[in-house]
Amino acid sequence: MKQRMDILSSWMKENKIDVSFITSTENVFYLSSFHSDPNERLLGLAVFQDADPFLVCPKMEIEDAKNAGWNGDIIGYTDIENPWTMINDAIVTRLSTVNKIAIEKEHMNVERYEAVKELYPHASMVSAEEKLRTLRMVKSEEELAIIKEATALADFAIETGCAAIAEGKTELEVLATIEYELKKKGVNEMSFSTMVLTGKNGASPHGTPGMTKIKKGDLVLFDLGVVWKGYCSDITRTVAYGEINEKQKEIYDTVLKAQLAAIAACKPGAKASEVDLAARKIIADAGYGDYFPHRLGHGLGISVHEYPSLTETNDLLLQEGMVYTIEPGIYVPGVAGVRIEDDLVLTKDGAIPLTQFPKELQTIK
Amino acid sequence: MKQRMDILSSWMKENKIDVSFITSTENVFYLSSFHSDPNERLLGLAVFQDADPFLVCPKMEIEDAKNAGWNGDIIGYTDIENPWTMINDAIVTRLSTVNKIAIEKEHMNVERYEAVKELYPHASMVSAEEKLRTLRMVKSEEELAIIKEATALADFAIETGCAAIAEGKTELEVLATIEYELKKKGVNEMSFSTMVLTGKNGASPHGTPGMTKIKKGDLVLFDLGVVWKGYCSDITRTVAYGEINEKQKEIYDTVLKAQLAAIAACKPGAKASEVDLAARKIIADAGYGDYFPHRLGHGLGISVHEYPSLTETNDLLLQEGMVYTIEPGIYVPGVAGVRIEDDLVLTKDGAIPLTQFPKELQTIK
Repeated sequence: MKQRMDILSSWMKENKIDVSFITSTENVFYLSSFHSDPNERLLGLAVFQDADPFLVCPKMEIEDAKNAGWNGDIIGYTDIENPWTMINDAIVTRLSTVNKIAIEKEHMNVERYEAVKELYPHASMVSAEEKLRTLRMVKSEEELAIIKEATALADFAIETGCAAIAEGKTELEVLATIEYELKKKGVNEMSFSTMVLTGKNGASPHGTPGMTKIKKGDLVLFDLGVVWKGYCSDITRTVAYGEINEKQKEIYDTVLKAQLAAIAACKPGAKASEVDLAARKIIADAGYGDYFPHRLGHGLGISVHEYPSLTETNDLLLQEGMVYTIEPGIYVPGVAGVRIEDDLVLTKDGAIPLTQFPKELQTIK
Repeated sequence: MKQRMDILSSWMKENKIDVSFITSTENVFYLSSFHSDPNERLLGLAVFQDADPFLVCPKMEIEDAKNAGWNGDIIGYTDIENPWTMINDAIVTRLSTVNKIAIEKEHMNVERYEAVKELYPHASMVSAEEKLRTLRMVKSEEELAIIKEATALADFAIETGCAAIAEGKTELEVLATIEYELKKKGVNEMSFSTMVLTGKNGASPHGTPGMTKIKKGDLVLFDLGVVWKGYCSDITRTVAYGEINEKQKEIYDTVLKAQLAAIAACKPGAKASEVDLAARKIIADAGYGDYFPHRLGHGLGISVHEYPSLTETNDLLLQEGMVYTIEPGIYVPGVAGVRIEDDLVLTKDGAIPLTQFPKELQTIK
């Protein structure tokens, strides 16, 4: 944490930024090891070039922050106190003037922005996000070790889901079994709302599981992940329940080929867009180009969707140590929805899948 | 929905607002009946004084929007398109000039704010939130009927949790059973991360459930709610597993007295602060004032925390049709954490609890 703060402070010196006021759950956790999401209440971490940082949180979370390992100053406010006055007091003891402030422009809302502007009307406001997401993009060994635990739990979840499939069970019943078994293993949060989709529901890339019953001849699509020690996993598998038709098999095979081609295209120095296009070309060549309406993948870590975005237009160069998903899909309404997603870490020898549940079409009898 | 849009348009006319650009999942749902949370992707609803509104969403959600009942224009964008250009095109066909724009300042982030500012550098930006939350604060009969279904499911969840308590079970195992049974009933989302806390964990008002095992003599605190047809419930109960000590009983009794006093203080025209203080005084008089570090309650509806906030300083007058929580708590580290929370609807005769699980101390044998 100290090292991360130091990198941020150095960047602030280079850019003449007097204070960074970080307010997202994810970046506060990344820099302080305190994980908190106090909803509409303010959470903040003020970082300076040289002065000591301080944390701002609801008063009732002070103990949690200390338990998480934060041993700097803490401003704890109650629901009837104005945290901005307290923040200003803490800043003026550290700085004589505030000319430039870094905030997370994609996270901070306009109301808070106006509160900061009111305190420091003459300060310029720049974004800290680019710096922080570049930092977070390459994972440390410690982070990778945690992510591997999270991806192993994702594999376990898919196994559990496959074992729970049976004629007449609803999507939600299968989903319930998966999350029940995960909780017994100590998982208390999913990366996002678990998806178990079957029949025509699978053909919506962002469908919602419900009371639809699974029946023979259906594809069943699982998309899920766990939050584990503050890090996310994210896996998609599509399996067959009983015999599926030739068209569905063709779609499955196309997605799988596309996914493998994208993995093969990964190497340090390759462009994100090249990897996206490696998959996209196979899908387009098979005639399904219009049925793959989303990007190929996204970075993964403290957030389930983080930097970088693997799209056909992002020319960012892949770097060793990046962790990201590769998840092409084809969704043909009334015919099939298939997506196959792995989490991968990029090494000097290419991308290594962290999720390891089999990808050859699994048929549940 | 039409009526809600009309109220918003009238308010815009009165305030000379040319366009309201609504971007929160909750308010877009309230106005359009389309429920979507596309994470970092943009969701928006543009409302005009007279011109037809339009919806903005990721292209892959267009069908979902139509299925949800939205039959106005839709701008669907892919991951490689810039939605702001498309939004501007749709606005210029409807308006010759844009002088004043309403946005949700507590929701819109600075990056999007700057994107809007760039399109309309001379327009003033006002907040639509106050209007929308005032509208949402008083529930219609239809909304109340759904919330009652959501609170009945919350009661069921507490019953399920109590039945699952047993020596040596972990917090997460009990939590898993609750959510499993809810999913079997068709619940696919909780209002927030379910809390099952025992032993010393219960003494943190915002603790995280984990592998702590329940043992005789412990209090077990449940705080949970379901999202049902787009509306939330939120209940807290604290129960005893086996015999608890006198101090714990005293704390329980104090919280219960405070909660009942607050409910009794509710009537149309009463101040929110009076209701908060009715509970706070009982807790302070019993010597636990320092151990009740949060507000008394909050509005409840599409969001689990919505307008109004019941604090000791909010002098908002309660109105018939409001739905909100009353949830005093006392947290004494090493001794006990007790919170009792109901969801209530305010009628002309006072507040009617919607959550109905018993509040006299329940002792699980």
